[in-house]
Formats: sequence, C-alpha cells, structure tokens
Amino acid sequence: MTGTMNVGLVVDAVNQYMVTLNPEIAIDTSTANALVTECSDSYLNDMQGRHVRYEHVLSAIGAATAGQVEEGSVGAGTGMTLFGFKGGIGTSSRVLPDDLGGFVVGAIVLGNFGRRAQLTIAGVPVGRELSGWRPPEDVPEKGSIIVVIGTNAPKLDRGLRRLARRAGLGLARVGSISGNGSGDYIVAFSNVARIPHESDVLTMNFDHVVEDGPLIDALFQATIEAAEEAVVNALFRATTVVGRDDHVRHALPLEPTLQLLRKAGAIA
Amino acid sequence: MTGTMNVGLVVDAVNQYMVTLNPEIAIDTSTANALVTECSDSYLNDMQGRHVRYEHVLSAIGAATAGQVEEGSVGAGTGMTLFGFKGGIGTSSRVLPDDLGGFVVGAIVLGNFGRRAQLTIAGVPVGRELSGWRPPEDVPEKGSIIVVIGTNAPKLDRGLRRLARRAGLGLARVGSISGNGSGDYIVAFSNVARIPHESDVLTMNFDHVVEDGPLIDALFQATIEAAEEAVVNALFRATTVVGRDDHVRHALPLEPTLQLLRKAGAIA
Amino acid sequence: MTGTMNVGLVVDAVNQYMVTLNPEIAIDTSTANALVTECSDSYLNDMQGRHVRYEHVLSAIGAATAGQVEEGSVGAGTGMTLFGFKGGIGTSSRVLPDDLGGFVVGAIVLGNFGRRAQLTIAGVPVGRELSGWRPPEDVPEKGSIIVVIGTNAPKLDRGLRRLARRAGLGLARVGSISGNGSGDYIVAFSNVARIPHESDVLTMNFDHVVEDGPLIDALFQATIEAAEEAVVNALFRATTVVGRDDHVRHALPLEPTLQLLRKAGAIA
Amino acid sequence: MTGTMNVGLVVDAVNQYMVTLNPEIAIDTSTANALVTECSDSYLNDMQGRHVRYEHVLSAIGAATAGQVEEGSVGAGTGMTLFGFKGGIGTSSRVLPDDLGGFVVGAIVLGNFGRRAQLTIAGVPVGRELSGWRPPEDVPEKGSIIVVIGTNAPKLDRGLRRLARRAGLGLARVGSISGNGSGDYIVAFSNVARIPHESDVLTMNFDHVVEDGPLIDALFQATIEAAEEAVVNALFRATTVVGRDDHVRHALPLEPTLQLLRKAGAIA
Repeated sequence: MTGTMNVGLVVDAVNQYMVTLNPEIAIDTSTANALVTECSDSYLNDMQGRHVRYEHVLSAIGAATAGQVEEGSVGAGTGMTLFGFKGGIGTSSRVLPDDLGGFVVGAIVLGNFGRRAQLTIAGVPVGRELSGWRPPEDVPEKGSIIVVIGTNAPKLDRGLRRLARRAGLGLARVGSISGNGSGDYIVAFSNVARIPHESDVLTMNFDHVVEDGPLIDALFQATIEAAEEAVVNALFRATTVVGRDDHVRHALPLEPTLQLLRKAGAIA
Repeated sequence: MTGTMNVGLVVDAVNQYMVTLNPEIAIDTSTANALVTECSDSYLNDMQGRHVRYEHVLSAIGAATAGQVEEGSVGAGTGMTLFGFKGGIGTSSRVLPDDLGGFVVGAIVLGNFGRRAQLTIAGVPVGRELSGWRPPEDVPEKGSIIVVIGTNAPKLDRGLRRLARRAGLGLARVGSISGNGSGDYIVAFSNVARIPHESDVLTMNFDHVVEDGPLIDALFQATIEAAEEAVVNALFRATTVVGRDDHVRHALPLEPTLQLLRKAGAIA
Repeated sequence: MTGTMNVGLVVDAVNQYMVTLNPEIAIDTSTANALVTECSDSYLNDMQGRHVRYEHVLSAIGAATAGQVEEGSVGAGTGMTLFGFKGGIGTSSRVLPDDLGGFVVGAIVLGNFGRRAQLTIAGVPVGRELSGWRPPEDVPEKGSIIVVIGTNAPKLDRGLRRLARRAGLGLARVGSISGNGSGDYIVAFSNVARIPHESDVLTMNFDHVVEDGPLIDALFQATIEAAEEAVVNALFRATTVVGRDDHVRHALPLEPTLQLLRKAGAIA
Repeated sequence: MTGTMNVGLVVDAVNQYMVTLNPEIAIDTSTANALVTECSDSYLNDMQGRHVRYEHVLSAIGAATAGQVEEGSVGAGTGMTLFGFKGGIGTSSRVLPDDLGGFVVGAIVLGNFGRRAQLTIAGVPVGRELSGWRPPEDVPEKGSIIVVIGTNAPKLDRGLRRLARRAGLGLARVGSISGNGSGDYIVAFSNVARIPHESDVLTMNFDHVVEDGPLIDALFQATIEAAEEAVVNALFRATTVVGRDDHVRHALPLEPTLQLLRKAGAIA
C-alpha cells in the first residue's frame, strides 16, 4: 500500500527484494510480479515528488512483524482522507466460534473515500449529525480504498473471491457508495493452502471450506464486520495532519462522535 | 418475477404474448428471449404444483399500469420470507434535484433473504433487538432477492451495470450478507435510449450520463437508497401468510419495530 | 439443447422430471434449476408453433445412453445452419496419453453460426473456395453455438471455466468470429468431484488438476481440438433439410470439400 | 511494452514524463496511472539487471512517430520467444471498404508464447512440418502475449472490449492455446471519442458503432485478421538473437516456411 505516484518505484523495490531473496528468479525459475496497491494522497502530499525511496520499501518489509498493527495516519495512511476527515490504515478481525473451527478473518484497509454526509458508524448517521462541525468539509476528494482480507480458513480462489466481494458490503455499512472516482480494490488471501510453484504431479487436493456447509455464511458475516470495523478504526485512530501548501485534514472529533453513538444506543 | 419452479411456464407464456404482439418474430425478424426472474417460495408454497398458468401471466401483463405499485404479500411476493419475517414485493424511488436534471431512480424488489438477527432498518439493529420476539425464527431460509432498477437518466449498458452494482450496497445496509444460498440478481434499465432492433446506419449516438460529471455520484446514492428502502417497504407492507402444510410466516411486528426506531432516534 | 422458442416448456418439463425423480424438491430440500440451452432455428422451423412438447423432453431424457452420439440434423440440430450450410449436432473427443493420466475431454456442439466465406477446415479456407458453389448463400443467419465440454479430469469450477474459454479458441480455428448476433454459450463439467448437496462438515477436499503441472496445457489443447472437430463433424454429418415455407438448407458438399482438403495436403 | 522486471521503473518514468507534460497532476487535478505491459524475456535477457533506465523510456516516448513501425527483435521484442522461434514486435492492420466507412483496425503485438508444434500460418501447420528442423526446440517457454488494438471507428468501452475479445480469436488461428503460463493481455482503444477529464455537464453523446448494424461483424473480422497477421509478422521480421549465458533464439527459417505455405496453396 502506498500513494498513487509511488507505485512504480515500490514495484521495482519489491522486485529487487524478491531477487535478493530468490536469486533464481528469471534465471532458473519464472519471474516475480509485485502486488502494490495505491490510493491518492494528493491533498496532503507532494505526490509529484514521489518521496518513497528504495530504502523505505526495504525497511518496511524488514520491519514487518506479527502482532498489533499501527493504525491511522501511518505509512501509506499518512496522506489519506476518509469521509472528509483524516483517514488512513485501519484493521479489525473476527474469530469464529469453536464449533465453526475457530477460524479467523482479518481485514486491513487503506481508507481514502467518502463525503462527510455519508459517514455511518454502527448504523448511526454520524456524518449527517456532524454536518455543522467546523471547519466545513473541503471540496470532496475523489477517493478510493484498498482492503486486504486474510484468513486461516482454507479457501481456494473461488472462496477468496467470494470473501472479497463481501468486504464491499462492509464498506456499504459505513456509508460507501463506491463513488465514481473511487477505485476500490479488495484483495483476499488464505494462508493455508501452499500451492507449489512448479509441480510434476498431475493432481493435488487441498482442504477447503464447503460452500453449502455450516461455515460459509459465518465467514461472510465475519468478513463484512471486519471490513466495516477496519474503516471505523482507521477514522478513530487517525490524527490531524498538516500537509503540503498548509493543507490540513482534521481527525474525526472523537467526543462528539461518541456522544452521537451513545445517544442512539449504539454504545453504552 | 415468479417462484422458482414456475420459470419455465412463465417464459413460455411471455413468448406467446410476444408473438401475439409481434407476429414477425422468428419469421421475418429474430427471436424473443423473455427475462423471467425467480425466488424460491418453498416454505409457504406447494412449488411442485407449479400453479402459475398461462392466463395468470397474460392477465398480469394486461393489468400492468403506471402509478402506485402494490407491495408486500402480492404476486411473486406471496410466498417470500425476508429476515425470517414475511417478505415480498417492495418499491421505492428517489428524484434528483432540478440542478441535477430531476432524474428519477426507482427500485422494485422481490425480497426473500436474510436471518432475523441481520435485519437493520435505518441503521438500527432491529432484528437483534427482536431476537426474543415470539414465535422464534424457523430454520433459516436460504433465500435470495431480485432487484430491478429503472431510471429515466440516460444510461447505456456500462452506466446501468454500475447502477446495478450499487443496488447491492443498498441491500448491505439492510443487513444482507449475500448469503451462500442467495442468488441475488439485479437488473437495471433506462427508458431513454431507444436502440433500434436492426439498423442500416453505421454509427449512432445517444445522450448518456457523463461518468466524471456532477450527476453520477448522485445517481449512485439514489440507487443505494432506493434499493435499501424498497426492502424495508417490502417488510412493512407484507402481511402474515399461512401456506402449505400449515406453515406460517409472520409479518414484521410493526409497533415494536417503530418503537425501536424511535428509541434510536431514527424516526421522530 | 433446443430451439430458442422452446426453452420455457423444456425448462418446465425438466423440472417435472426432476420432481418425479426427487420428490423432496422444494419440500424437504431446495429447488431445482434446469440448464436448458438454445439456438434459433427460425429459417427452417415454425418457431412460433413451439412444437416441442413434454413427452418429447421426457422421451429424450429416457433415451439417453452412453456410447455413440447421433450427429448432424438430429434433435435440436434439425433446424440449424452452420457457415451457410446445414448444421446441427457434432461431437468429438481427445484421450490424453497414459503418462498424462489418460484423461478424456469430449465436446458436443449445437452448431448454428457463420457465413460460408468464413468456413475453415483443418486450416484450409474451404468456404472461400466454395464461394461459387450453387445455390449461393442465403441472407446470412445471425447464428450462435452451444458447446458442452465434459471431462473425467478432476476439475473444480476454476479449471472448468478455463477449459470453457479454450473451447472458444477451437471455434476460432473453424472460422468463427463470434459474430455480433452470435450468443455463444460454453458449458463445461467434470464427472469426478461429487459435491454434496448439503453438508454438515466444515471443510472438504477434492483431487483436482494442478494448474502449474504437466497436465493443464494438454487439457487445453485437447479441449480446443475437440471443439474444433465437433463443429466439423456437425457439418459433415448434417443432411439437407427442407423446412417451413419451402426453405432449404443444403448440406456441405462432401466430395468438393474433401478434394479441397486433399489438394492442400490436409488429408491424404 | 517492456520486459517483466522493468515494469516498476517504466511506470515511474512514464509518471515523471506525465508530470512534466501536465504539471497540474496531483496538485490541481487528479493523478496519472501509467499503463505498462510486460512479457518475460528471461531466456535471453539478464532480467535481474533491470537494464531499462529512465532515459530509455523518455527517449522511446520522444522517438514515437506516425508511420511505419519497426518489427521483430526490437524494443521490448528483443528478448521474446514465439513458438520456439525468435519472436517480438509485429503489427498489421485492415481497412474496411468505403461503404463500411473506410475505418481502420490496427494491431501491434509483443509475441512471446507457444511451442513449435502449435505454429500455424495461414492455416498451414508449419510448426509440425518443421518438427525436425535443427536445432530442436528448447525447454518450452511459458510465454505470453500483449496485443494492442487501435481503431478510428468510434467505439465506447463496450465496443472496445468486444474487439479485444475477438483479437484472442486471431491468436487462436496462429495456434495459440492460451497456455497456462500465458498471461495474454489485450488492450483496445479508439482515437475518436474525446472524453473530457472533468466535466460540468450532466450528459453527453458520442458517435459510436451500432451493434446490430452493418459495421460490427466487419470490425470483428478485421480485428481477428490483424491480430493473426501481426503475430505472423513478428515471426517473419524477427532475427536470431544471442543473449545471456550464450542462449540463442533462432529466427523462423523463412525459406522452408515459404515452401510449406506454397505447397499447401496458401501463397502463390
């Protein structure tokens, strides 16, 4: 995940990293194609400067760890705008009950879309209620969102595509209209099936979720909720950022928001 | 729109109607292909009986008029189940403001999906709040929904496909998870461009909505809202139905629902 | 496979057959949805008459056997037109060598498309060479084709979709341009994996063809060749048919065609 | 068009060029997203070296002119392999007759796919006939192809997508099986409709080709033929290349090929 104008360099840096890790690439085996996603951070960032460099990419890969993920105005999230407020990185997950295998579905988003009036949190039209909040909304960004869904449920491509589509329903719950300018990309992966790069055998089999079984709707529900909550978390964790040309993107005002949620009975 | 097991006969009856209307079909011009949509009404209906007959189809076509549409447990809606309550036909529309051309987007749905706990009205988790309502939910239907979106905004196929996809976001707002058993079909049309059946000219042009212009996000928003509200209207207008084998599907209890909406501040 | 205007009745008849076979349909289990494909036979057939009846459908199902398939002007093929000549049903198959598992790929087509000048057999532009053949081509049909690909290679939906797309490449080899009026439908199935209708287990696994293994390109090649040859067989086996209003569709003139193939070295 | 491992840098260089040309990008207007396509040239090229630099990209853009296009082992074509022979850039076009508007359809390909035995030229199985040609085929490349279709026929996105799909039928005629390892990308554009980047008007109209009119099948046929011939031209114009580690890719032997075509009557 990065800003739109950095994609080329990040692809090149990931390729460089892949070659270091797998020196046989493009010599004894096939090539590597990096998957790099982007949203525009033009309001806050000097995008023409393309300030992401090779060392940033390699250091980001090197710093990747399991565990808690930083959210809000970090990394690619630094320049993002969400429902007219400061956006960025958000994450959330759901764990299925034991009798459904205890599988986990997680979502991480780079949130950069929407107008203030559309923002809906836990069903409460927070954005409309905050219509008078100062400062008023700027000219609306023509944003987008990247969603990555990961699961340890065994899913092949069909199952993952179905999860990815459900993530879009989670975005709808927060108020997304998949606006015209919005290039919404959703990527889903399972970390279970290891598909060999090259293989001499004719057939193989992998455990995967039964489509008409008891698990599938639970995974759909989990995906929708995780995607929805990840966007909300991006908003709640983002902090006000001052960018290029004194452009300011304000964080969601937390206290007024919490009051609205309490009033509607959405939180205690 | 009809019940699943009637599709064949309804297609045949529509073809018969088309031939009566256009006696040149399949003789001097090409053939006709009826578009017939279906949801399963197996809980309430003796589907094996395939009780829809030619005269029902022709009489339904003959009775079609402009103006108010009957909603709830009517027509194909008679046997439908929605979030565990009685479902069926619902409709809703939005009119854009004059400076956006005053265009209309309308939705009509045949609603037949969802579990009680998923039902969300105006953002309020009505279904969860009604979890104790008697009688309890039956074994969940594996339902589906048909949505038809119509507009007088000039849209070609690309624009209509984009509207159809937004209708799905409206379903998400009511609590749809596009469940595994749910074959959700969305059809969109515009009544503006008249594309000639056969033509001797090489090129043509039609007015159509500019994709990066001021109208498109308004049409998206209108579509989402109309689809959402059409499902809610189907619930509010449906009445309890007793079907085959004494199966009963209860209408949404209106007074408790309205109380929940009032309490959350969703309605006055 | 049937003529366009019969689809409704055939769907209904198949549903009736399915209910007889599985009396629990739509009562204790879910509904059945028949897959019925169609091409237009308007030039030869009185399509408005919709002459296919329930007993024809049930008798066709009852008569289905393993083994040799009738080809040419039979069944749905009776009214078809292929490259301006008499078309219809054709079939072909390929068996992979033992070291590739000995798997079989078969194709059956209902061929109803193309203009004389496009016809290409074994790479030889037979249609162009026959341009002066009498009688001249009628006003070109706006045809289509149905292709069904069956295999005993273990393939899940992704693998089958990939086979179906390759079948289209086989059609290209015979001269198909997937013309504007041509609704080309390709259905692929494998008879190996038995997916339970309803299941209580969470996950399952099926043997399936490795995508980066030694088998996949062989299956692609087999599919392309079988689809191509099935169309050629439909042409070679079809016989001249006189239809409604004294319309005549002439069979491909075999001897001139064979001479052209010999001259080009395509056959001995 | 470039080699796989250069994509990142080429994207970045195109973005740099775009910013120079349009200094308002990402400041007063939206961002630019470069469309860069790739095939693997791993057999001949030291891909890990990623030898394409900014100056190469800018100089290639600067050198672009109307008129004759270099073909064969040039540019991205330098390292390509086609049916086991030397591949690369090929181009071809068709002009419709005046009564069909005189429209032009052109194709340019970066050809990098196929095994020797599959090669078919003008319907003649040249590759099979050359099976004994020395040196024998190397371990088969897992190639791919990029096709760009351009036309001055007025086409909107739907029409262009339909052309792109027909280009695939042209590839089938040369022997392509769209092999498993083959990422075949086809891009189509029309240079007629100028869609404004941002617009204040609600609707617009563009001339575009009537789908059921006299032009569409001619454009399909032209696209298929141009794509087919562009691949053949890539083969005929490519010259033997010696690459990394003394890897050699031999050009198609022209005289034996022409003899085979003459013998089959495909050329005089």
